[in-house]
Amino acid sequence: MIVGVLGPAGSYSDKAAKGWIKKQGITDSSTLIYYDDISDTFSAVIEGRTDMGVVPIENSIEGSVGVTLDLLLESDVTIIGEIVVPIEHCLLSRGKMSDIRIILSHPQALAQCRQFIKTHFESVEIRTTGSTSHAAKLANEFDEMAAIASKESAEAYGLNILMPNIQDRKQNHTRFVAIRRTDRETVDTSTENAYVHKTSIIAYIGDDRAGSLYELLGEFAKRNINLTRIESRPSKRSLGDYLFYIDLEGNASDAIIKDALYHIESRVSMLKVLGSYNGYQLDS
Amino acid sequence: MIVGVLGPAGSYSDKAAKGWIKKQGITDSSTLIYYDDISDTFSAVIEGRTDMGVVPIENSIEGSVGVTLDLLLESDVTIIGEIVVPIEHCLLSRGKMSDIRIILSHPQALAQCRQFIKTHFESVEIRTTGSTSHAAKLANEFDEMAAIASKESAEAYGLNILMPNIQDRKQNHTRFVAIRRTDRETVDTSTENAYVHKTSIIAYIGDDRAGSLYELLGEFAKRNINLTRIESRPSKRSLGDYLFYIDLEGNASDAIIKDALYHIESRVSMLKVLGSYNGYQLDS
Repeated sequence: MIVGVLGPAGSYSDKAAKGWIKKQGITDSSTLIYYDDISDTFSAVIEGRTDMGVVPIENSIEGSVGVTLDLLLESDVTIIGEIVVPIEHCLLSRGKMSDIRIILSHPQALAQCRQFIKTHFESVEIRTTGSTSHAAKLANEFDEMAAIASKESAEAYGLNILMPNIQDRKQNHTRFVAIRRTDRETVDTSTENAYVHKTSIIAYIGDDRAGSLYELLGEFAKRNINLTRIESRPSKRSLGDYLFYIDLEGNASDAIIKDALYHIESRVSMLKVLGSYNGYQLDS
Repeated sequence: MIVGVLGPAGSYSDKAAKGWIKKQGITDSSTLIYYDDISDTFSAVIEGRTDMGVVPIENSIEGSVGVTLDLLLESDVTIIGEIVVPIEHCLLSRGKMSDIRIILSHPQALAQCRQFIKTHFESVEIRTTGSTSHAAKLANEFDEMAAIASKESAEAYGLNILMPNIQDRKQNHTRFVAIRRTDRETVDTSTENAYVHKTSIIAYIGDDRAGSLYELLGEFAKRNINLTRIESRPSKRSLGDYLFYIDLEGNASDAIIKDALYHIESRVSMLKVLGSYNGYQLDS
């Protein structure tokens, strides 16, 4: 099985993909392919260059990963699994604290360490990279550069951990989803040790009549279907026009959920079922 | 009146603040003070160094400005106005297209031009700055640098507009809010030419019982109160635990809204009313 992730090696996506494969009990050899960005990871799945991809969707400090939400809407992919990874950002460098003039990392990681950077590095230059591990790879070139990345990246690129656990909140987790091309054969997924079974949908209500979202949520509430997440995302048509990303407990083939989705479909302009899947958690 | 904004001069915040002051018909001299980041703009308001601040809250392509949402929760500030500004990003440089090795901008602007950058500048280095106008100021130093910023920034920092209107969608607007310290005297605001009068609240439901958000929205729906926005934001306590930012039409002192908020308060762990205010739109 060929799995695409945001690379290079040592990224949190790398950790997530390896963790998910292990939780699935997949013992035959899997090959990881590393891509420069999340959008390339989606393209590889769609063009059949990988069997599946593992991409970040949400972080407990900084919230949604916008590009993933947008690509889940636009692409013909299905979510087949979820894995939650504890995130412990470290400040990594070849040099010493006093050498640091430039800090490199992915924008999400920089946002998760916003207060740390402001307190300790008020006036250093900030450069963004496509991934945290890419930042670590670049920081290996100069003493004056530091990367914000995982401890695995320190090992992978020969850097020192100057400060561990630097994110603004100690509790920091990122949720990743495993995706495959919708028309491909289902990848067998294990239900063992799963902490939750969910279905993800995207709904576009398409009018701003008072109570439209309320009525949509009512279809779930009156059937006692538990929602684990509701996120709005710009439709990009105009300011104030939104899509809703909703996660709910249960499988889209369950009679009660099927019925709810059937009634919702007649209320909305667009409904996309992203998939039903198991969720797993990795230990730190 | 002293107004703090994200600077330097030429930023979209600068344009928003000037636009709001004009829409208010404030004719006595106002002084703009430019800050390095959004968080400093909040601090200046809270510490009384400015009478008010104008900060971006939401973009029609890239969605919420996370740091503003977080600071609205944490800070003792009140929203006193809204202004929607059309955003037309340009590629600015002292050099020619073929010179460009580094693109500088604010992370939100980079995200709004994601496809443009991927198509035209696959392999250039991306550096983030605290604002688009700061990127323009820096790009004035080297021919190999280009900034993504407003046409006003091109003028302010002597750069050429290499390509206009480069954001991924032609329609691009950012919503800004004007804030003052909550215990300060109300700044008189005009209602003339306002396109909407809204109230913004933050609710923390604090349990994940099925239907909690549904019941909260029901308090508005049964009173025919129109919601213009619902946004979830991580509570930062744990993954899957959210705050809801809700905008509704009407004033918190209207009897019907007062009544809805009274009933909501008893249902939630935390309710913060951010303010009732008029919204204006700037022409491009």
